[in-house]
Amino acid sequence: MSNEAPNATSPSAATVSLANARRVADVPARLFGSFVEHLGRCVYGGIYEPDHPTADADGFRQDVLDLVKELGVTCVRYPGGNFVSNYNWEDGTGPRDQRPVRRDLAWHTTETNQMGIDDFYRWSQKSGTEIMLAVNMGTRGLKAALDELEYVNGTAGTELADRRVKNGIEEPMDVKMWCIGNEMDGHWQVGHMSPDEYAAAVDRVAHAMKLAEPALELVACGSSSAHMPTFGEWERKVLTKAYHDVDFVSAHAYYHDHGYRTHDTIEMQDFLASAEDMNYFINTVADEADAAKAINHGSKDIAISFDEWGVWYQGRWNEQETAWAKSKNGLHHGAWPTAPHQLEDIYSAADAVVEGSLMITLLKHCDRVRSASRAQLVNVIAPIMAEPNGGAAWKQTIFYPFAEAAHYAHGDVFAPVVESPTVTTKSYGDVAAIDAVVTWDAATRSGLLLAVNRDLDAAHDVTVSLAGLPGADGAIAVTHAQVLHDDDPYRTNTADEPNAVTPADLAVSTAADGTLTFTLPAVAWTAVRFTA
Amino acid sequence: MSNEAPNATSPSAATVSLANARRVADVPARLFGSFVEHLGRCVYGGIYEPDHPTADADGFRQDVLDLVKELGVTCVRYPGGNFVSNYNWEDGTGPRDQRPVRRDLAWHTTETNQMGIDDFYRWSQKSGTEIMLAVNMGTRGLKAALDELEYVNGTAGTELADRRVKNGIEEPMDVKMWCIGNEMDGHWQVGHMSPDEYAAAVDRVAHAMKLAEPALELVACGSSSAHMPTFGEWERKVLTKAYHDVDFVSAHAYYHDHGYRTHDTIEMQDFLASAEDMNYFINTVADEADAAKAINHGSKDIAISFDEWGVWYQGRWNEQETAWAKSKNGLHHGAWPTAPHQLEDIYSAADAVVEGSLMITLLKHCDRVRSASRAQLVNVIAPIMAEPNGGAAWKQTIFYPFAEAAHYAHGDVFAPVVESPTVTTKSYGDVAAIDAVVTWDAATRSGLLLAVNRDLDAAHDVTVSLAGLPGADGAIAVTHAQVLHDDDPYRTNTADEPNAVTPADLAVSTAADGTLTFTLPAVAWTAVRFTA
Amino acid sequence: MSNEAPNATSPSAATVSLANARRVADVPARLFGSFVEHLGRCVYGGIYEPDHPTADADGFRQDVLDLVKELGVTCVRYPGGNFVSNYNWEDGTGPRDQRPVRRDLAWHTTETNQMGIDDFYRWSQKSGTEIMLAVNMGTRGLKAALDELEYVNGTAGTELADRRVKNGIEEPMDVKMWCIGNEMDGHWQVGHMSPDEYAAAVDRVAHAMKLAEPALELVACGSSSAHMPTFGEWERKVLTKAYHDVDFVSAHAYYHDHGYRTHDTIEMQDFLASAEDMNYFINTVADEADAAKAINHGSKDIAISFDEWGVWYQGRWNEQETAWAKSKNGLHHGAWPTAPHQLEDIYSAADAVVEGSLMITLLKHCDRVRSASRAQLVNVIAPIMAEPNGGAAWKQTIFYPFAEAAHYAHGDVFAPVVESPTVTTKSYGDVAAIDAVVTWDAATRSGLLLAVNRDLDAAHDVTVSLAGLPGADGAIAVTHAQVLHDDDPYRTNTADEPNAVTPADLAVSTAADGTLTFTLPAVAWTAVRFTA
Repeated sequence: MSNEAPNATSPSAATVSLANARRVADVPARLFGSFVEHLGRCVYGGIYEPDHPTADADGFRQDVLDLVKELGVTCVRYPGGNFVSNYNWEDGTGPRDQRPVRRDLAWHTTETNQMGIDDFYRWSQKSGTEIMLAVNMGTRGLKAALDELEYVNGTAGTELADRRVKNGIEEPMDVKMWCIGNEMDGHWQVGHMSPDEYAAAVDRVAHAMKLAEPALELVACGSSSAHMPTFGEWERKVLTKAYHDVDFVSAHAYYHDHGYRTHDTIEMQDFLASAEDMNYFINTVADEADAAKAINHGSKDIAISFDEWGVWYQGRWNEQETAWAKSKNGLHHGAWPTAPHQLEDIYSAADAVVEGSLMITLLKHCDRVRSASRAQLVNVIAPIMAEPNGGAAWKQTIFYPFAEAAHYAHGDVFAPVVESPTVTTKSYGDVAAIDAVVTWDAATRSGLLLAVNRDLDAAHDVTVSLAGLPGADGAIAVTHAQVLHDDDPYRTNTADEPNAVTPADLAVSTAADGTLTFTLPAVAWTAVRFTA
Repeated sequence: MSNEAPNATSPSAATVSLANARRVADVPARLFGSFVEHLGRCVYGGIYEPDHPTADADGFRQDVLDLVKELGVTCVRYPGGNFVSNYNWEDGTGPRDQRPVRRDLAWHTTETNQMGIDDFYRWSQKSGTEIMLAVNMGTRGLKAALDELEYVNGTAGTELADRRVKNGIEEPMDVKMWCIGNEMDGHWQVGHMSPDEYAAAVDRVAHAMKLAEPALELVACGSSSAHMPTFGEWERKVLTKAYHDVDFVSAHAYYHDHGYRTHDTIEMQDFLASAEDMNYFINTVADEADAAKAINHGSKDIAISFDEWGVWYQGRWNEQETAWAKSKNGLHHGAWPTAPHQLEDIYSAADAVVEGSLMITLLKHCDRVRSASRAQLVNVIAPIMAEPNGGAAWKQTIFYPFAEAAHYAHGDVFAPVVESPTVTTKSYGDVAAIDAVVTWDAATRSGLLLAVNRDLDAAHDVTVSLAGLPGADGAIAVTHAQVLHDDDPYRTNTADEPNAVTPADLAVSTAADGTLTFTLPAVAWTAVRFTA
Repeated sequence: MSNEAPNATSPSAATVSLANARRVADVPARLFGSFVEHLGRCVYGGIYEPDHPTADADGFRQDVLDLVKELGVTCVRYPGGNFVSNYNWEDGTGPRDQRPVRRDLAWHTTETNQMGIDDFYRWSQKSGTEIMLAVNMGTRGLKAALDELEYVNGTAGTELADRRVKNGIEEPMDVKMWCIGNEMDGHWQVGHMSPDEYAAAVDRVAHAMKLAEPALELVACGSSSAHMPTFGEWERKVLTKAYHDVDFVSAHAYYHDHGYRTHDTIEMQDFLASAEDMNYFINTVADEADAAKAINHGSKDIAISFDEWGVWYQGRWNEQETAWAKSKNGLHHGAWPTAPHQLEDIYSAADAVVEGSLMITLLKHCDRVRSASRAQLVNVIAPIMAEPNGGAAWKQTIFYPFAEAAHYAHGDVFAPVVESPTVTTKSYGDVAAIDAVVTWDAATRSGLLLAVNRDLDAAHDVTVSLAGLPGADGAIAVTHAQVLHDDDPYRTNTADEPNAVTPADLAVSTAADGTLTFTLPAVAWTAVRFTA
């Protein structure tokens, strides 16, 4: 945001400079995590569909698995989300034909429990992803969490660990990262709590889990958004109380274009600047975490696990839910479907630009945000869609910015100095049209520039000065440059036309002094790989 | 209550006028509910006694069932009361010979679990009553409540619903009304809570139950009496916190003649005016509920479920309990009897008048009191007594006022303008001797006048003006008029003399202008059915 | 403590006078209790070791059992301690080969559950000790406590009591004294609570247990030491809330010579005066208990159960624990040993003097301290060591002061007037070198004088005037007099030299007026039995 007077830069041009750039931190592997919840067709009909032509012996769709690998996901948060707050982990273990069918209150569906921890562990082995587990703090608590931990990570020889061995998983699953519940500040959550209640509860659970396994990395629930009534107070109380045993505090944020019904341009411009909210969210949580550290005379920083983020058209979902609720005229008329179509947002070119912009923000804060999970992975507000009835899997527009960062953002993150024309937004005032971040891997002398043009109306010339990368000793050579843009920002991919919106080559001029220049059309995301 | 100067009415006469009467509301069917607790011989040896000559294949006494129907009970709250706070609902399901025997702490008895939810459902079908279930918030909480809900109301196809089907009940029981615990403000209660603790707990349970079934009608515990130390504060905190998911707040009130040992007339006069306390109780709870609505910017009114009310000689019970406690001189000397004689109050003519008076008060508040349960149904502070060892069932004095209202109070309630001589009471000051209410069913053009004379010493002439009933277009015709009174207000019915105190015909004069006149003896209840 | 000017008493002499002595109270049998926790080798390899040559059919070591009887233990607290906060009592019941193996988080060990309540009951019968049980308030709560109570004390005929009968214990165990959790104020405790949280929890549990069995004697957790951040506040809140249903509040205190590594004399002198801290602790808790009584307008005094006390080199343990924690470099590298060597402190002559001094303090406060448990009994900070691999059991130095008091402190306690030279301490200022207490059993006309010289440097002459013992009518006759002292206060017993430090005879001069005189060397404990 800038209210400065116009400078030498032309109104339609931006500069991105590595000189005086702040080295943020190394890129955490977990920044490219995703979220898999028992919700809609994310699990059933998504990663798991035994009747699908591509399914393997475990029932995992290989077409989906291939796209997951192509997406570059490093770590997967499981099994919820709201779902976990009324989940019995035991239900998803042991022989599949003996598992109980349950009502899930979070999404008002029938849960068959044909997938569970055992199965997800096998899927994680096949997908090469780290597991991040959430425990139920809604209908259960301390004891169930400890039992689950022992089942998952325990060495054979105790009743619970032996049960896992009997279920076919001989070695401890070695799950290091655990979420102590999910969005317990949300009034919608089964078993929601006040800040004081959750502070006491998470302090107890985290302490006991650490007694068992001191090397665990534990995530306390933070606010479900920066707009919760208890935002800030929640973080302060929770982290002050549980400081010594908690390593991360979670943050969740979803954004969408509130003008989606009418294609309102003011709303769209606001939506394009969503990263401003994420930036504010991260800074505020970091401040509260530091205050908690000070009160506890502590030496460690509480990190942020931004373990739900992305574009989600909650407005559409709420419309559906309201209609569904009103259609019920009696006690038993509410259906409990199994794996229904829920939250199956179809993403536009503009959505992809926003997701690319959010990823830039996460990278710029990766000294504090040491873990992140895009929500979700398949079918449910997801980059990967898996058609039912033997259909194919395909990529949404938002697939591309995530995949590029996951595969090519290595080494260290640098927050460049950006001088940019501004655009005026309803919620954030005047904001920079251009945002950018650079990663640089000194070992391989390869780097990645990620940038977005958040201006709904105007293209902008961008000049990037890469001089100053530590250890760079050759000339800048662009190895790959792409841009994601469509003249119709509302255009989407579909099952029938899955390549309607994909990245195109970007023309980049390279100067001898390490300066790159290119033009970003309105509403565009770009990635430039280079060596130096 | 009136301190006005004497008016034209003679000191010994009262007028009851429908002119300017306030239409309160329609008569709620649930106002004629009753309460069945696993306590003493209410269940075992009451509604259920398989060895009794009249027992059916399910073990239900038909003599009791016949009287329940004669009483006109519409809805039954089950299984407690204090009992529920240490109850496992699962214990009362499945094959009877596999059910566990338990200690019940609430009443220090042995619970055989031969009756449970399954059986009570069958009994409710046979008795034609709606079920109102209470869940255990003492030794259990959220998870057990959700499981119970799924067992009771779930559609077949989940583990819990299928368990019900396996136990012989194929269709969902369709129980709409659920009490979230019982008297959790009472220090005597297993698992009692502070106002803040219960507010948080009920908010969580009610929200999760509504997630499952939005059409449920949920009752939060209110105060166990208007004289609890947290009265008022309790309602305000609980309803403010749980406003959005709670539909009712409970109220409980028991009254008795504190001079029962010595036949103290001051105490008896006080007792006769007990409805004054109920009136104050209802008004106060309504005020707190409205305050909670305002704080929540809500649009719905929280209703009152007056789900325990009646005459109970708690003084006698406390004497028994104290003696019993003192008789124990060691750890194991406390007996744990099965279905002992507990709280088997025998009711007098005066008790019946008070119960009639309380029913008038409930009717006059039925815009807010949308549910009520007289406590209890059989043997335990009950209108119906069931003799053991193959003995008969018989009616107590209090049977009659309840039955008359349950069968004949239809349509709308009108609170007439009552001008009455007053009596002086210890607790309530000067109160009207005569109280009255009128119900009027415009569809059938039939009405009911209920009135009491609460004066211990004097008979009063009563003039009732029925002119003004909406839709009435004929002359008033009295179809039935009765009075319950005994010159000895302490006289009771007994097993041997079950008809000692019963209603007698009342002489009513009818004038052409719709005016009825009659004389009520001291300590009397009357009911006049009419058409117009 | 005294800052008075020197008086006629020589600086190196002390007087102990029964004239004007305060009769404290009768000696409570439970004052000589001990503590047995599932920790290290206290249970496994301690009281229970089925492979040991002396083991009986139940697996109990008879050499240990013989020493337990010689020690004179009256009452044993079981099964924890920290252990209980993650313990399932059911795990230790039923056939041994069907019991589950569990992780214990409190001590990071593997719990085989080969000992449990059933077995401990049998051991208590053989050792002639009363059982004092602690319930799990960490991972469980109200319901588990009630179930355990019914299993332990219930009369046959209910599911839980019948389970006990089936497990071979036909009669109720008749356990009267129950601890509602353990050290719930400690941040190290699984499920630790704030003062308000525990106050609410213990109030609920105690009330429900008393509903079941009014004659129970219930112990609320007090502070884990007088130096906890919530000390005082904890007692006040807990006892105010749960006053009516709680009989005891616990106190725990451990002391050790903080200069143990360097033989720092200032630290040793401080350690010798540890009873000053215990004295302050008891007085403060008594004050808080009395305040809670007043607020509740109560008539009973809350007693203190000093149910963990003794010398424990926590510094050594913390060093071990820190090293152990640091040795772990991964998730599964933390071992979960079964019955490892933990807390196996070896005690010196000075340690025995301190324990003797603490016992004197407990006796002087036995009007309020009506129960105490020395922690622990075997191997773990214990008077009795049991060598593994068929080895012998032997007595530590601290065995002797406990055994003498347990066997010979009968009748009433008198707190004599002590005039003593003082020693200067770092923590407590100037304190009396000599402390003493007298018990007197009028029925048998036998008494016991217990005294310590806490002076690290100087011997002191002691003159004891026993005139004034109620009912004494003969001349004072010393029947046995012993002193425990070693010129090297750091000298210990060992398995190989178990009698290195034992009591020796003490020379006592008796005068006709009932005056005894003797000299106590520096750092010495003495016991003089007499008749009168």
